[in-house]
Amino acid sequence: MGFEVIAFDADDTLWHNESLYSHAQARFQEIVGAYSADNGVLDDLYETEMANLPLFGYGIKSFALSMIETAIRISGGRIEASEIEEILDIAKEMKRAPVSLLDHAEDAVRALSQSHRLMLITKGDLLDQERKIANSGLAVHFDHVEVVTDKTESVYRELLTRHGIAPERFLMVGNSLRSDILPVVALGGRAVYIPYHLTWAHETVSVHPQEAGAYAQLEHIGLLPAFVEQLVGHGAGPHVEQSPIEKEEGR
Amino acid sequence: MGFEVIAFDADDTLWHNESLYSHAQARFQEIVGAYSADNGVLDDLYETEMANLPLFGYGIKSFALSMIETAIRISGGRIEASEIEEILDIAKEMKRAPVSLLDHAEDAVRALSQSHRLMLITKGDLLDQERKIANSGLAVHFDHVEVVTDKTESVYRELLTRHGIAPERFLMVGNSLRSDILPVVALGGRAVYIPYHLTWAHETVSVHPQEAGAYAQLEHIGLLPAFVEQLVGHGAGPHVEQSPIEKEEGR
Repeated sequence: MGFEVIAFDADDTLWHNESLYSHAQARFQEIVGAYSADNGVLDDLYETEMANLPLFGYGIKSFALSMIETAIRISGGRIEASEIEEILDIAKEMKRAPVSLLDHAEDAVRALSQSHRLMLITKGDLLDQERKIANSGLAVHFDHVEVVTDKTESVYRELLTRHGIAPERFLMVGNSLRSDILPVVALGGRAVYIPYHLTWAHETVSVHPQEAGAYAQLEHIGLLPAFVEQLVGHGAGPHVEQSPIEKEEGR
Repeated sequence: MGFEVIAFDADDTLWHNESLYSHAQARFQEIVGAYSADNGVLDDLYETEMANLPLFGYGIKSFALSMIETAIRISGGRIEASEIEEILDIAKEMKRAPVSLLDHAEDAVRALSQSHRLMLITKGDLLDQERKIANSGLAVHFDHVEVVTDKTESVYRELLTRHGIAPERFLMVGNSLRSDILPVVALGGRAVYIPYHLTWAHETVSVHPQEAGAYAQLEHIGLLPAFVEQLVGHGAGPHVEQSPIEKEEGR
């Protein structure tokens, strides 16, 4: 029992992304920390990001606007123009950052592209994702690339319908339980969870024991081709490894 | 000789958009004008937008970041945090602005959807475009919606190939010669140019006499259904009206 399509998340599944944000946050904290009595600068930033998410969506530009807004609020309006300029520079550097592939990502994707139709499903800023896909060198291995504004059950359902893929013949691989794993499992699809060492707080979820049995977890993407081969060869469901049930740490 | 697909641009073709930017620019000029000795505030803003385009792309978030950067530069760093906050508010109001359809747009689209497959091809921020499409009430009439990062000849070629549409069976309708008309004509497709009363300087182009004969121009979208019927009925090319050859005014 094989899969028709194996789909990959991109950020923090194929290439490093959260580490860029983490580095940016450290610089933001340095700039704004001087104006703050407590240590809650990054909590304040996260609150701003969540409040702006419906308007601004995901991605670096949205993050930059939230940093500026937070800096003004935390400083009670005392933040200097030169410091806001530094925040703009942080955003530009993030945009310019070269794509850095995760270990084993290229080998795994190339190997699986020999035997399966591959899809890339990523959310965020369209221009930014297209730039990263082009610079990753991996585009040639993917049959379809889909950039979506959010990865919910209904978005996955629409994608599968549009591409004519039955859920049980669809395997999703990603680092976010919230965006890559649980909505696909809920649809009757199969999923492999490969955690990244950093997770944005927004992407963390609590997992019910029942859900945790419905997807597999691998330590790194290099293990994926053998895992898929084992699945296909033995007709097994994805219950090869037991997923740990735990609340993830915020990023 | 009919068309397989009629595709529409969205911003300033189906609903008002440039007027939002125009209003925002007037407010920006009020905020920043106090710091500037000359009247070049909007020229400076345009320069910043062009410099940031490869990094930030199109859309309101990009525009907001460019306004902030320009305000800091023009003021020599004297701009106040409260004024930058006002610029952030401008961006949020733009994001929240209700979709305002152009006169005749709904009737024209509904009428043409009875006889043709319709496509929406728009560039800009994915979340923003999806919000506007959903709020426009027009989504139900379109068979496909494509949000792209830029509207170049190669992007149109890829779209036509992916959807299996021959260029000569494709008609594109839009308000930008640069983005909607000339690249489609270059591919061998057909195009109807319907100018909006405002055009962003970036979208203006000079048109060669040869190119100007290759597309039609209509005064407003309400004339489109009759125009299409005439084309289909008489097997004529799109040379029904002679397009004027003129350089558009910048916004």
